[in-house]
Amino acid sequence: MQKKNIAIVGSGLVGSLLALYLRKRNYNVTVFDRRPDIRTIRFSGRSINLAMSVRGWKTLDRVGIGDEVRALAIPMYKRTMHTSDKPVYHQYYGKENEAIYSISRGVLNRKMITLAEEAGVVFRFNEKVWDVNLPEAKIYTGETEKGEWKEYQYDMIFGCDGAFSRVRHKMQRRSRFDYSQDFLDTGYKELTIPPNPDGTHKLDKNSLHIWPRGKFMLIALPNIDGSFTCTLFMPHEGEYSFEKLSDRASVQQFWEKYFPDTLEIMPSLIEDFESNPTSALVTMKCYPWSYWNKVALIGDSAHAIVPFYGQGMNAGFEDISVLDDIIEQLGDEDWQAIFETYQKSRKPNTDAIAELSYRNFMEMSSKTADPVFLLQKKIEKKFSEKYPDKWLPLYSRVTFSHRPYSEALEIGDQQANIMKRVMQLEDIESNWDTVEVENYILDLLASESYKLQD
Amino acid sequence: MQKKNIAIVGSGLVGSLLALYLRKRNYNVTVFDRRPDIRTIRFSGRSINLAMSVRGWKTLDRVGIGDEVRALAIPMYKRTMHTSDKPVYHQYYGKENEAIYSISRGVLNRKMITLAEEAGVVFRFNEKVWDVNLPEAKIYTGETEKGEWKEYQYDMIFGCDGAFSRVRHKMQRRSRFDYSQDFLDTGYKELTIPPNPDGTHKLDKNSLHIWPRGKFMLIALPNIDGSFTCTLFMPHEGEYSFEKLSDRASVQQFWEKYFPDTLEIMPSLIEDFESNPTSALVTMKCYPWSYWNKVALIGDSAHAIVPFYGQGMNAGFEDISVLDDIIEQLGDEDWQAIFETYQKSRKPNTDAIAELSYRNFMEMSSKTADPVFLLQKKIEKKFSEKYPDKWLPLYSRVTFSHRPYSEALEIGDQQANIMKRVMQLEDIESNWDTVEVENYILDLLASESYKLQD
Repeated sequence: MQKKNIAIVGSGLVGSLLALYLRKRNYNVTVFDRRPDIRTIRFSGRSINLAMSVRGWKTLDRVGIGDEVRALAIPMYKRTMHTSDKPVYHQYYGKENEAIYSISRGVLNRKMITLAEEAGVVFRFNEKVWDVNLPEAKIYTGETEKGEWKEYQYDMIFGCDGAFSRVRHKMQRRSRFDYSQDFLDTGYKELTIPPNPDGTHKLDKNSLHIWPRGKFMLIALPNIDGSFTCTLFMPHEGEYSFEKLSDRASVQQFWEKYFPDTLEIMPSLIEDFESNPTSALVTMKCYPWSYWNKVALIGDSAHAIVPFYGQGMNAGFEDISVLDDIIEQLGDEDWQAIFETYQKSRKPNTDAIAELSYRNFMEMSSKTADPVFLLQKKIEKKFSEKYPDKWLPLYSRVTFSHRPYSEALEIGDQQANIMKRVMQLEDIESNWDTVEVENYILDLLASESYKLQD
Repeated sequence: MQKKNIAIVGSGLVGSLLALYLRKRNYNVTVFDRRPDIRTIRFSGRSINLAMSVRGWKTLDRVGIGDEVRALAIPMYKRTMHTSDKPVYHQYYGKENEAIYSISRGVLNRKMITLAEEAGVVFRFNEKVWDVNLPEAKIYTGETEKGEWKEYQYDMIFGCDGAFSRVRHKMQRRSRFDYSQDFLDTGYKELTIPPNPDGTHKLDKNSLHIWPRGKFMLIALPNIDGSFTCTLFMPHEGEYSFEKLSDRASVQQFWEKYFPDTLEIMPSLIEDFESNPTSALVTMKCYPWSYWNKVALIGDSAHAIVPFYGQGMNAGFEDISVLDDIIEQLGDEDWQAIFETYQKSRKPNTDAIAELSYRNFMEMSSKTADPVFLLQKKIEKKFSEKYPDKWLPLYSRVTFSHRPYSEALEIGDQQANIMKRVMQLEDIESNWDTVEVENYILDLLASESYKLQD
């Protein structure tokens, strides 16, 4: 039997990795992208560095490209906190050797397109998809929305075209398609810390650096070329806002006041601030994710989330390995069953990581500098180290395990309830390291009929 | 100064009423509609009769057309319940003479277009709006989306084009526009009870008739021609569903089993069931509702809700009277200020009626036949009659008052908390009519620091 012809819309991280997976199953795969080949252009100036964790690595390793990507990534074992009022300090993400991996979106995407191309995937760059015929799996491309269109016929279409997906847009106009887009009041801007003249990093390169300032924060993630990609997260409007930083003088003043320690290492701050766009942050949800056996959404097109858990790409990659598992289980004939199993399995998990990511925004921008929060983390850490089978911290379950996101959300809420009661104990600041506190947690765990499913 | 030229997209109830309001302020008003003039065609077979209540009447009276519309409406003072296991019984909606008014959507819409036309509004039927230039207030119409378009230039555009609004669709593609559409698993189908040969009604005409059956229900609302417009609400799929009623035999069997008392008065049931479409029910929310001083959304295009509180049209009409109030307060020059005041004022209220309408779906389809619920209503009614200044029932606040919907939701929740505790009293079934229960409610009201804002 002739192998199916598959179109993928979008040559981003998820689109190019899915292409590789499907190509390995011997399908004929064509990837369309409205933009030029990312290997031929300078990257956009609106990206946030990626933090690859185990869900992402699993999907890469399984298709045999983990090591090639690892060569482009830098492990970050800890947050390095730059607060205004005390010395720089660290928070380790997990156990020894557990790290999240910083990688530039542009660098990774270029690599993956090359790998997919080498495997036989056909890329059609600069070709804009304007419409999709869902029941017949046809796509229509052309120079302009109102101009002449070219028609392509496929057996299946995958929409990997991101948060503003055209493929989803077409599904959205059908009846009984649930959809939401929610923007944060906070936006972001990409900035940079260049390398030292000798190519080394200007800050500890094995850290994710955070300058928390309550309503806004600056972060920096390392690149292999010695630079850091920085992101300023700040409200669009209001007292501290992008709106207020509308000229060079106001940016300079603001920086001197709130991030004086970075002025020296960010020589192009003012130019970058002016030339890089201010971008919006959005959570998008929808359902269903597929149309019969013809069309499916994967990655951000199905579930765009805010970046505060570093899980956007990881969740998109996990979509692919879950889909691949399902193809293994069901065989590769009944694609309607494959798509239905896929969407039912993934939807509760991507809803959960959307919620966790939104909550982490609060944690990163304010709580990471709060002494009560820090004590709580210390208690959790100690307990978890002593009773690893009873307490896997939420962050670790999300970042260093393959357990479902929905389970992480549920158990995380149980843990939060327990810690809330622990932190209300009298003199917890002085007693936190006692066997009484430890037994109290053990009792609460028992009484909450807490189920640990690892 | 030359009066502004205004375009309204959509000639439905809200579009034609807004046209009349703006015409009375002497603007030049043109209404576009992709459909033919409703006065020239048979209506769609997918409508649900309207239940006009005080918010709707206020808006009509204020522009001087209340009495002309009242002539087309039938007051419904009560629900008439047709359960399977006991005699037909009534639930009054409010105090004596308080009624909601049944009116056919088609009849009302035809009347309002005629009234608007007489006032000097220009209607352009059969003219499809495909695109809107928001910053320049231009609209583009044509036969097909890809064909030749005609450009119109206006000073302002109002999107009154319903739940699937093209105008909102254009706004939705901008950044930082929040949007959601959520479909119920339940759909609906229009059916009919024709008049008697002498033109009288086959059922009590001053009632909203309900046949509650748990997972599904039938309702009937009277028309002035002696007929009733019926609606079957039922899940799309599952054990009791439209999917299951796929042929004439299954409809006949189903009806004989669940609605045997209606078989005789619905002679065209089988034909209607087959020819009328099954429609979906959706809640749509978005924000913001306006674009600078150029474009605003009014009615369903801004806040489509499910029909279970009978407030969809009333909320849309209230949008218009709120907007008109704001124009009175601010003057008619600074439309950006007008639109911002309007959307900020309305959004919490339309969110609240969306929530209340969704909850009422549960109440209508199941609880209206539940003895505990009926006892609760009886206790509330008695208390409310004795202490009208302390207890305005939720339904009355929504339906028979002009208090904000958001207040109705909040106070309704406080009342629900109180009644939950009352219903947990021992022997409430026998003691409900005692002074102890009355005092208990008074105490709870005092302790809840319940605020009555009427």
